[in-house]
Amino acid sequence: MDTFRQGVRVNNDLTRELLAEFFATGFLVLVGCGSMAQSILSNGTVNAPINVNLCWGFAIAFGIYIAQHISGGHINPAVSTMFWSLGKLTSIRLLFYILAQTAGAFVGAAVVYMTYFDALNKFDGGVRSIDGKNATVQIFIPFPSPYLTTFGGIIDGIVATAIFCGSIATIVDSRNKIPAPMQPLLIGFVVVMVGSSYGMNAGGTINPARDLGPRIFAWCIGYGWKVFSFNNYTWFWIPIVAPLIGSLVGAWLYKLFIGFHWPKEGIRNLGNGRKRKEDDILLTDRPREFSNIAS
Amino acid sequence: MDTFRQGVRVNNDLTRELLAEFFATGFLVLVGCGSMAQSILSNGTVNAPINVNLCWGFAIAFGIYIAQHISGGHINPAVSTMFWSLGKLTSIRLLFYILAQTAGAFVGAAVVYMTYFDALNKFDGGVRSIDGKNATVQIFIPFPSPYLTTFGGIIDGIVATAIFCGSIATIVDSRNKIPAPMQPLLIGFVVVMVGSSYGMNAGGTINPARDLGPRIFAWCIGYGWKVFSFNNYTWFWIPIVAPLIGSLVGAWLYKLFIGFHWPKEGIRNLGNGRKRKEDDILLTDRPREFSNIAS
Amino acid sequence: MDTFRQGVRVNNDLTRELLAEFFATGFLVLVGCGSMAQSILSNGTVNAPINVNLCWGFAIAFGIYIAQHISGGHINPAVSTMFWSLGKLTSIRLLFYILAQTAGAFVGAAVVYMTYFDALNKFDGGVRSIDGKNATVQIFIPFPSPYLTTFGGIIDGIVATAIFCGSIATIVDSRNKIPAPMQPLLIGFVVVMVGSSYGMNAGGTINPARDLGPRIFAWCIGYGWKVFSFNNYTWFWIPIVAPLIGSLVGAWLYKLFIGFHWPKEGIRNLGNGRKRKEDDILLTDRPREFSNIAS
Amino acid sequence: MDTFRQGVRVNNDLTRELLAEFFATGFLVLVGCGSMAQSILSNGTVNAPINVNLCWGFAIAFGIYIAQHISGGHINPAVSTMFWSLGKLTSIRLLFYILAQTAGAFVGAAVVYMTYFDALNKFDGGVRSIDGKNATVQIFIPFPSPYLTTFGGIIDGIVATAIFCGSIATIVDSRNKIPAPMQPLLIGFVVVMVGSSYGMNAGGTINPARDLGPRIFAWCIGYGWKVFSFNNYTWFWIPIVAPLIGSLVGAWLYKLFIGFHWPKEGIRNLGNGRKRKEDDILLTDRPREFSNIAS
Repeated sequence: MDTFRQGVRVNNDLTRELLAEFFATGFLVLVGCGSMAQSILSNGTVNAPINVNLCWGFAIAFGIYIAQHISGGHINPAVSTMFWSLGKLTSIRLLFYILAQTAGAFVGAAVVYMTYFDALNKFDGGVRSIDGKNATVQIFIPFPSPYLTTFGGIIDGIVATAIFCGSIATIVDSRNKIPAPMQPLLIGFVVVMVGSSYGMNAGGTINPARDLGPRIFAWCIGYGWKVFSFNNYTWFWIPIVAPLIGSLVGAWLYKLFIGFHWPKEGIRNLGNGRKRKEDDILLTDRPREFSNIAS
Repeated sequence: MDTFRQGVRVNNDLTRELLAEFFATGFLVLVGCGSMAQSILSNGTVNAPINVNLCWGFAIAFGIYIAQHISGGHINPAVSTMFWSLGKLTSIRLLFYILAQTAGAFVGAAVVYMTYFDALNKFDGGVRSIDGKNATVQIFIPFPSPYLTTFGGIIDGIVATAIFCGSIATIVDSRNKIPAPMQPLLIGFVVVMVGSSYGMNAGGTINPARDLGPRIFAWCIGYGWKVFSFNNYTWFWIPIVAPLIGSLVGAWLYKLFIGFHWPKEGIRNLGNGRKRKEDDILLTDRPREFSNIAS
Repeated sequence: MDTFRQGVRVNNDLTRELLAEFFATGFLVLVGCGSMAQSILSNGTVNAPINVNLCWGFAIAFGIYIAQHISGGHINPAVSTMFWSLGKLTSIRLLFYILAQTAGAFVGAAVVYMTYFDALNKFDGGVRSIDGKNATVQIFIPFPSPYLTTFGGIIDGIVATAIFCGSIATIVDSRNKIPAPMQPLLIGFVVVMVGSSYGMNAGGTINPARDLGPRIFAWCIGYGWKVFSFNNYTWFWIPIVAPLIGSLVGAWLYKLFIGFHWPKEGIRNLGNGRKRKEDDILLTDRPREFSNIAS
Repeated sequence: MDTFRQGVRVNNDLTRELLAEFFATGFLVLVGCGSMAQSILSNGTVNAPINVNLCWGFAIAFGIYIAQHISGGHINPAVSTMFWSLGKLTSIRLLFYILAQTAGAFVGAAVVYMTYFDALNKFDGGVRSIDGKNATVQIFIPFPSPYLTTFGGIIDGIVATAIFCGSIATIVDSRNKIPAPMQPLLIGFVVVMVGSSYGMNAGGTINPARDLGPRIFAWCIGYGWKVFSFNNYTWFWIPIVAPLIGSLVGAWLYKLFIGFHWPKEGIRNLGNGRKRKEDDILLTDRPREFSNIAS
């Protein structure tokens, strides 16, 4: 056993991190697309939208828990891009992270397919299609609502990802003092929130790897080239490009409105003549006389 | 980069706080009204009430996380008014906070409009209306149920906000020792609770800025003056005034029943002849003999 | 202000605790029965069962948060009875707690009535009734399903409350080291769980005060003596008696299977020849060689 | 009382642990199958799938809280097998744990039966059957969807349990520093996640004791030998065998991708020339210049 451990152990930082990103992104897609399968193949009788929302939220939370202390648990090229733009990740690492995430998402989709193979055949009679009443490609990749314009799709992806990454920037800003073991769960709740507010236009496009990996897989198993050519090639690149832009928008809006202006001196004016220490909580209810005693 | 940082950095306390309140209230409305859009424009198929409830809850939680350590994360004039009445905020700061919150809510509503522009046009054919089956103004502002009287609306807003602010007073009372990073999440759960118990009469009117900002925006984009004149001008001021009253009712009921009477001496009678330290937890299950050993 | 504070301040332990139990139980019923009103008066369109479940769960959680450090936050005679049986509450205190809880529940129900007065009149045309399609008494008190026998009702109340109080005994057992600020939230989740597993027979009868207070109130506002005489007086006492028995069953089963046998010595056998400290977590994944190094 | 305590107290480690596993697994089945009863006997009107999912999640969470510090709170032979394979449990202990868990599940099912006896008789007229529109055996044991092949059932059980146990391995790995009181709740959320993604094929077969105990009980109360012979004896062993395999797959995939490669030295390369301490959180947002100051 010890020899085995020595043999398989990876000592290279980058390799270790890519293994973690690959594994955790695969986990994310395995669980998240599993909830889509359960929803679509049961015609919504087993999974209501709330189940799908919560399931994606927890999938992201536990995906992050898995890789948190190894690679940071980005499991999303948009998140990696945000950290790259904040100077936390080199360009070469960003590239490798994105490849590992996309490969993991591909494998995750494959396991979904294997596990729901019987149900899928029952549902569509063995004919994989991307439209019509037996369409099942939505298990793997969300499709835009028919009304959505190309411009609307880009805006939607930017806004959804800006909310997502702006919230992550808040959660992981160490000055906000949110304990590390709480962070993945809170990020999962952010996903529940985004899915319940910006999931209607195009399924909540906030993760290019979660989109591209399963899209390639869907093409491999016979959904046809239409997974790319859909809407005259005006769609498939949007869930890749828009989240990358949105992640920068979200992170830098947070910096511009909050992060850059953090009080420096350790004390600040409370607006009523009293000063307090920076790390006090303003949301406190100590009656005035208590404060007087304390200060 | 460093020069840029120096250039944009705000060193004035009030300005920094107003930026935070503006940004975080905009976030709140962007997410919360997004869930309303998803619910209304899909005729409830994408969002059930539970999705909308949870989404508002998380929107408030993460809005508070964003601004918590800068401005306190009130993102609601009713909450600011509560803190003002408790001597934690000067009158001038209260005024500026309310303005920043309302402006943020206006901008948040504008981004909702932009992101759901395609879906909105599909739903109402481009005609923005506040009644009839294509009514969509409820995306931005809740309307009272037809049965609700003016007096009933005032009571509803006071009760809902009293529950909300009484709970916040509990959560942020430092003697209750709830860790700061847990507070915003708990306040979010309070919102889920209020939305599931007092959301039917008038949509849960607990935040004047969340109401007035989007109301003005709705007027700007063509819903007409009726957003104000509705019900002969008997409605539009209720979601502004009732929460301000309710916040005082909630906070001061908490003080009258709990806050004023906190044990002072550090020890108290447990009712069976033993004394214990103030900061013990009564909800404990140590068998009597253990206590005897300990005391 | 300071004079006012001195004037209203209660220094007697029991009075302070009764104020807390009264206030927090009123809060519980105000919120919980509010969710029932929203469910019944909207014919389930605004509130699905999950909303009602979550709302009761959070109502109990925040009710406990309110009173936790003053009275222990029992807000339920069954819980007080459990602590009495564990030697944590004197008999006289138990009696007063139950009175305060029931009075609080009565007042909470009255505020629900006031706030939903318009909706209630719209729904039932002003005729308060306990059966038929316009029945609304279920807002205040749950009624047993028609199939339920008297014996079945007693079993149901005992089982539901045993689950509830056995879980509370676990959560508050200090040897389980669950932090005080997490306890009320977890107890709220227990309520969600009980409501989703034993809510069908009779609405989940786990709290005599929550039942009796609103039942008396319902009689006061014109639902008639039938709120007591229903089913030939075979029902109304069950939600009072069964939870009191169930709380003892739950607490003492916990003691018999878990509490009495807690390891004493601080070390114990792990079953593979190694010993470990009592406060280690068995649910740990340290590989064997790490343990070897550590021990 | 003290004499009674001395008399009932169990001092043998194994006995104490088996009592805990028996009691907590009984709790799990009592609550979880209760939610199934509420769902099936109300034709889904009282419980939607989300209620059932959440209820199982909390049932597992509080089942673990009950036994966490005595036996580890496995309450599942698959989890015990995982810990056995990781060298945390001897083979003999594994065997006894499994027996205690299965016996507990049997008793839990019996209490469900007792509590829902009236409702069951109303629903099926006293005829217990495993198919047809009055089928109720699903209260006790999930049945596979008609489309599911034997091979598909095995895959489904392996994948579902691998997700479950891989997540547990993550949560309880002490290097991930998740506080012990948070662990059971997170494991409960994992169950919500698995139920919402892999509950459709066969009800989420991740716990052999939860399946076998109630299956034997269902046979005892008259559902007939078909509970075993169903589908020509091709089904009943799958929920026993597949989770045991899946638990090993999940745990060891976690070890292979994450656990074996944990950074040893306490510092590691961040990818941009800076080193950091092992226990830093990568998911942090300290601006670059802050890092420069710090390092």
